[in-house]
Amino acid sequence: MKAEFSPQDKAYRAKSASTEVGRYSAERRKDALLAVADALQQNEQVIIDANAKDLSAAEAALNSGEMTSSMYGRLKLDRDKLTSLIAGIRQVAELPDLVGAMSMARELDEGLVLYKQSCPIGVVLIIFESRPDALPQIVSLLIKSGNAALIKSGKEARHSVQALFKIIMDTLIDRDYPPEVFGLLESREEVNSLMKMEGVIDLVIPRGSNQLVRQIQESTRIPVLGHADGVCHIYVDEHADFEKALRICTDAKCQYPSACNAVETILVHRKIAPQFLPRLVKVLQEKKVEVRCDADTIAELNLTGAKPTTQLDWSTEYCDLIVSIRVVEQLNEATGHINTYSSRHTDAIITEDKEAFEKFAGEVDSAGVYWNASTRFADGFRYGFGAEVGISTSKLHPRGPVGIDGLLTYKYRLIGNGHIVGDYTGPSSKSFTHRDMDIKPFH
Amino acid sequence: MKAEFSPQDKAYRAKSASTEVGRYSAERRKDALLAVADALQQNEQVIIDANAKDLSAAEAALNSGEMTSSMYGRLKLDRDKLTSLIAGIRQVAELPDLVGAMSMARELDEGLVLYKQSCPIGVVLIIFESRPDALPQIVSLLIKSGNAALIKSGKEARHSVQALFKIIMDTLIDRDYPPEVFGLLESREEVNSLMKMEGVIDLVIPRGSNQLVRQIQESTRIPVLGHADGVCHIYVDEHADFEKALRICTDAKCQYPSACNAVETILVHRKIAPQFLPRLVKVLQEKKVEVRCDADTIAELNLTGAKPTTQLDWSTEYCDLIVSIRVVEQLNEATGHINTYSSRHTDAIITEDKEAFEKFAGEVDSAGVYWNASTRFADGFRYGFGAEVGISTSKLHPRGPVGIDGLLTYKYRLIGNGHIVGDYTGPSSKSFTHRDMDIKPFH
Repeated sequence: MKAEFSPQDKAYRAKSASTEVGRYSAERRKDALLAVADALQQNEQVIIDANAKDLSAAEAALNSGEMTSSMYGRLKLDRDKLTSLIAGIRQVAELPDLVGAMSMARELDEGLVLYKQSCPIGVVLIIFESRPDALPQIVSLLIKSGNAALIKSGKEARHSVQALFKIIMDTLIDRDYPPEVFGLLESREEVNSLMKMEGVIDLVIPRGSNQLVRQIQESTRIPVLGHADGVCHIYVDEHADFEKALRICTDAKCQYPSACNAVETILVHRKIAPQFLPRLVKVLQEKKVEVRCDADTIAELNLTGAKPTTQLDWSTEYCDLIVSIRVVEQLNEATGHINTYSSRHTDAIITEDKEAFEKFAGEVDSAGVYWNASTRFADGFRYGFGAEVGISTSKLHPRGPVGIDGLLTYKYRLIGNGHIVGDYTGPSSKSFTHRDMDIKPFH
Repeated sequence: MKAEFSPQDKAYRAKSASTEVGRYSAERRKDALLAVADALQQNEQVIIDANAKDLSAAEAALNSGEMTSSMYGRLKLDRDKLTSLIAGIRQVAELPDLVGAMSMARELDEGLVLYKQSCPIGVVLIIFESRPDALPQIVSLLIKSGNAALIKSGKEARHSVQALFKIIMDTLIDRDYPPEVFGLLESREEVNSLMKMEGVIDLVIPRGSNQLVRQIQESTRIPVLGHADGVCHIYVDEHADFEKALRICTDAKCQYPSACNAVETILVHRKIAPQFLPRLVKVLQEKKVEVRCDADTIAELNLTGAKPTTQLDWSTEYCDLIVSIRVVEQLNEATGHINTYSSRHTDAIITEDKEAFEKFAGEVDSAGVYWNASTRFADGFRYGFGAEVGISTSKLHPRGPVGIDGLLTYKYRLIGNGHIVGDYTGPSSKSFTHRDMDIKPFH
């Protein structure tokens, strides 16, 4: 896409391209994805060289403390990351194709048949942080789901993203994809000017800081997919297996503390607190986790090194090696706390009591409710979606890690033969049959 | 629900009740619905008496012209309407129960299983016009889907709605439903104060004038389900059967002109315009429809009585016996016009050419794409949903007429046995199996 187009032009051109790619066959989408994977593999050195430019520019920011080492780590695209990235794209290519899938076929009356058929959403506006590997991951889901997109990546990843984008677009254009199907945006100003284009842009997916997501949610009437906060909980029930609980709490906090699915608050049943809590605090402190707990419990259980909590802790996503702990009297209090402070992302219970899990899963109002497993599993790859465009905490579809399924909507097709509503109203009207049929391509 | 509660209190109490009813069994929901249907039947006279009070209060407004006769018609609840209303509730009771249904069961690894399970959305805020029959229809869908709700009806239907609501609530409370599960709101001020309660109110469904819907969409960050405009199209293709086309266009315009699924614009292929258009105009004019068409075509085809169109016509929902007609050169121009001016509600093609329908259905970006059938079929009852809470033109789920399915969301349940993410990362990590399983209640 050439620089002379305004962002509005890019959006209209992407809209028109979305209609075209929405009609492609499953085979064509799969071929395109395999070709993109091959092209990325053949151009590994080009990508790594481009990434080296970004990394050398970032080093000054890293040394001055402007950039954290985890930001630098996300910016880096080495051969290992590239290999797993390319494997991921091949995995997406092999997933079942859902575009055009029928989920309902109902005879309303003789000769009048209603189908519910999935179709691409249209044009997606995606804003993501300086993580070059996110670009091919997201684009592979967009290709598989038949959508068009405008994409803005973090400026620190500029060279890597431009190199990746050129390789992908050259491959797609070679296979007769319209060049306007994907466009790179250059600036935040371009993004802002697109926020008012409801009806052209169908969906916005912001990935990045809570502040970015919230600002976008507040500045547009276009549906926004994603989540601002990730305040995840683990409730250690009175019937918990302590070894499982220690293993899971440690993994959920320490395995990747800045991820949105890391645990922030651990709730512990009062009955087991005297035995369990000192062990938990010790294990976490050995992993350099700062533990916060209410002052009474710290004194009572002699939790050396633990800091007292404040009200603010319960709604904070630390993104760091910090955890808050609260003692609860019963399961109800745990689910009440979670429904009050959780960001409805992912919450887990550790218990050997199936009834307790059932109650927990029924009451906790989150996209993921886990039993004896780490909250860190909330991820599109781990769910078997190949990749994800983000994690949604919305209650309208989609919810949780969003893969291909979440990038599709549906239309109802009604096939008649001159049928009119007048025949079905008033005295001596015809009746509907409303007979569900086997789902097959219509007519 | 007692008058002394603030709307915020009502919302929190409904939230708490929603957790309770979300756990009820399918059998209990069905029993409650059948009991509601019986109670309405036994109290027919009470309802009709209450409605008579609303009607007599409305007569002055009708005579002064403040109320249209169609508004008066919607306000009226006679024995026929009641009978079909009660039959509708029994139909909803007998529909398959979808709460808790699993749509995915996937082994991620040995002992680690992921389920995708549907669950109620939570608390729905519903605002509807002065149509008393809408209350039991909507409440029956809410009962079947396990949701709680706060409901505001038009003030002209006050007595009818209060009588219906009392009968329904007495029945539900008799069957141990929490009294806070449904609440009536008394004023627009109450509604406005709820608009900021995201996280407590999960969904807003406004039914009524375009202006009302748009004002609500602009005043809240809570997801809004519904549609402002209903600008529906019929495209009469060059390969149309004229008799079907005349029948369908007449039904779609005249059968109920103020409905959102009535046709507003008819597009006609130039090749058939000289033969078809004069016949169409004549048939519509005989039904007292005001026909608008571009000035050149009026002159060329001598369409006596037709008025010239302006640009404004293409985006106007007339809600009246008025139709705009445009001649197009080809199918592309028709789909282009529709995607520009349609409200993405329901659009139809009349043709004997299957390829033309396929192209139309692929390109038109609307919730309903119809082939040789009237746009007036876009309705929850006609689709076999029993009833509808509204029609959604959103591209995120749900779309089209919204019945029970659209009042459910889902959560992912992950069942492990101490599984942690750390085991699946780094060198010599475990692999996911990602094996889809038969769907059955877990464990």
